[in-house]
Amino acid sequence: MKFNENLHKLDNQDSFYVVSEKIRKYKENHPDNKVISLGIGDVSFPIIKPIADKMIEAIKEESGASSFVGYGNYYGLPELRKLIRDNEYPSFDIEEIYVSQGTKSDVGDILELFDKDSLIGIPTPNYPIYLNSVISLGKKVKLIPCDMNFIPIIPKEHFDVIYFCSPNNPVGITYSKETLSKWIEYAKKEGAVILFDNAYHHFVNNGIDSIYEIEGSKEVAIEFRSFSKVISFSGIRCSYYVIPKQLHRDINSLWRVRTINRFNGASYVAQKGAIAYFDDLSKKEIDKNISYYLENAKILKDGLTSLGYKVYGGENAPYLWVKSKNNLSSWESFDYFLNTLEIIIIPGVIFGKGGEGYFRVSALGKREDILLAIKRIRYDEETK
Amino acid sequence: MKFNENLHKLDNQDSFYVVSEKIRKYKENHPDNKVISLGIGDVSFPIIKPIADKMIEAIKEESGASSFVGYGNYYGLPELRKLIRDNEYPSFDIEEIYVSQGTKSDVGDILELFDKDSLIGIPTPNYPIYLNSVISLGKKVKLIPCDMNFIPIIPKEHFDVIYFCSPNNPVGITYSKETLSKWIEYAKKEGAVILFDNAYHHFVNNGIDSIYEIEGSKEVAIEFRSFSKVISFSGIRCSYYVIPKQLHRDINSLWRVRTINRFNGASYVAQKGAIAYFDDLSKKEIDKNISYYLENAKILKDGLTSLGYKVYGGENAPYLWVKSKNNLSSWESFDYFLNTLEIIIIPGVIFGKGGEGYFRVSALGKREDILLAIKRIRYDEETK
Repeated sequence: MKFNENLHKLDNQDSFYVVSEKIRKYKENHPDNKVISLGIGDVSFPIIKPIADKMIEAIKEESGASSFVGYGNYYGLPELRKLIRDNEYPSFDIEEIYVSQGTKSDVGDILELFDKDSLIGIPTPNYPIYLNSVISLGKKVKLIPCDMNFIPIIPKEHFDVIYFCSPNNPVGITYSKETLSKWIEYAKKEGAVILFDNAYHHFVNNGIDSIYEIEGSKEVAIEFRSFSKVISFSGIRCSYYVIPKQLHRDINSLWRVRTINRFNGASYVAQKGAIAYFDDLSKKEIDKNISYYLENAKILKDGLTSLGYKVYGGENAPYLWVKSKNNLSSWESFDYFLNTLEIIIIPGVIFGKGGEGYFRVSALGKREDILLAIKRIRYDEETK
Repeated sequence: MKFNENLHKLDNQDSFYVVSEKIRKYKENHPDNKVISLGIGDVSFPIIKPIADKMIEAIKEESGASSFVGYGNYYGLPELRKLIRDNEYPSFDIEEIYVSQGTKSDVGDILELFDKDSLIGIPTPNYPIYLNSVISLGKKVKLIPCDMNFIPIIPKEHFDVIYFCSPNNPVGITYSKETLSKWIEYAKKEGAVILFDNAYHHFVNNGIDSIYEIEGSKEVAIEFRSFSKVISFSGIRCSYYVIPKQLHRDINSLWRVRTINRFNGASYVAQKGAIAYFDDLSKKEIDKNISYYLENAKILKDGLTSLGYKVYGGENAPYLWVKSKNNLSSWESFDYFLNTLEIIIIPGVIFGKGGEGYFRVSALGKREDILLAIKRIRYDEETK
């Protein structure tokens, strides 16, 4: 029996798994200490009441004899797709919007749309799931280098598919209109498709928060968004993406056939909760949470910068990307932060070799932890 | 740009889509008539109260500052995995059980485990999602014929992977220990893997309700189960499957790496609901629902048989598989039932060419509809 040998290639050495094992061991050996997590990109606010109430209502429907809802919403509830369209993609048709159960799966599953011999390009550093999805599916892949400011450099060679993450995880930056326009131009010239992972778009206050703001992008770009960060749905699971009808003759309808054959829809309860997000009052409350995270990011950025760290991102994203001091490697910085400061960060090299010498800091935590973290770093610097 | 041309091969002519379009048109033209559905295999009982209550509790946790649950349960909640193990797979480790968001996706996604050149065998007739998943993923596939009683015939040639559905959709039968033992023997000899779709196992009152009852099966079989039918989770989404550690050196751990890179776990709310199913009181209530569906199946089977139809299945499954009368094709039977009797059935040919000349009847509906359906068929037969 021959299994998929590509699964053996998935790197287990530089991974979140090693991070979590190191943390586990440290906590085991120091059970009474307060370890602050600026690590994994999970939210700290719970789900707000109006959204929770709507989900409870959905469960009551599901337990009522005449209101029960079963199969049938393969592409998402019509009401949710319409709300997404009206609020976020007014120039699209409802059929161009697909509701799904998580961007992590979506950015891998979408590879089924492309020819098996497609060459996939991934700028480095980047969200490691792109590379691991591509590897596990046995696709051809090449990393695309970034410039000194972590802007992916337009390649001279041909790619069929290019992953883009904006606001970027881990670098925490958005890209200028000029940069994105050049990439759209490249994609058009090469007949390539850009997979635009826009899961953090709610954090963008100034700058481009959708690839479709760029002229010509509907012909070459698929955009992904998620409810995980904005309404704390990381445990509930609901995402969405846009496949424009202009992308290629028939591609949208091909994907409809693929979807109905491979997926039975996102959970009804999750979708009902997502619907409640689009109420004005919910949105207002959510905006306050996002502002809180962005304020966290500002505190971290100001604090780290004042301590002599070179910091990227953290303005239109919940992540900061920090250059290690004293030429420490990513893992050396990680160990220093964990063992000396009792702060969890993520080693940059996990996001690809372009991330060596950097680390990622998440601003999605609680304010008191953010302040305490800065205090610990400052105290250690001043008493060295 | 080259897209995945395999998606063009997905058959749209003989599909559930055509069924639903025909129904839509009929209802549009006859808005006041009562059309009875014995078609799509969705349940008619709502979610029972103890399960709904547990899900509401989960949402309250998700909206509490200190009880919020986000990322982290890639393979399922430990409590749920343990309950599944203890109740249904006592001879397995918890690490061998994966909780997921739906068997429709699971039976396609699992193909990532196998080498790209694997030859996949699918007995015909069968659940069409197997063939469509295999085609859309560009895998090599061959249909495996069944004998006159719809038992798949052991092939002379080599296959790497074989789909099995038991209780079978659409044929509604289970397989004898003898039949399954022969297939396990074949798989061992050929070094093949059997994908055993066991989504309807709760309907088995007598006979084999898990492939792991067959000796040696842990070395060659992966079993899939679902909460959709048993606790009416078709809209909620929760499934599970077993990858035995014996299957192949390292395969289980390889799949763990694959899963963490492609999936962020089933919805927390769904999993909490599934946990509540394992309470004794819930199980008792659910058993009553299953008995009700099986009683429906008996009524349909007795009724159709007494009217001269040749009927398969419907004893340990919610489906009946019926030979068309008067040499009607599957679609001719469908049209006769819809236009003359106002009853929805599913043309057998949708399940593959082995299903031509048959149709599928679902027993998952309401009792009064089942009785009325039989009455209509009888009246039409008697007044012809």
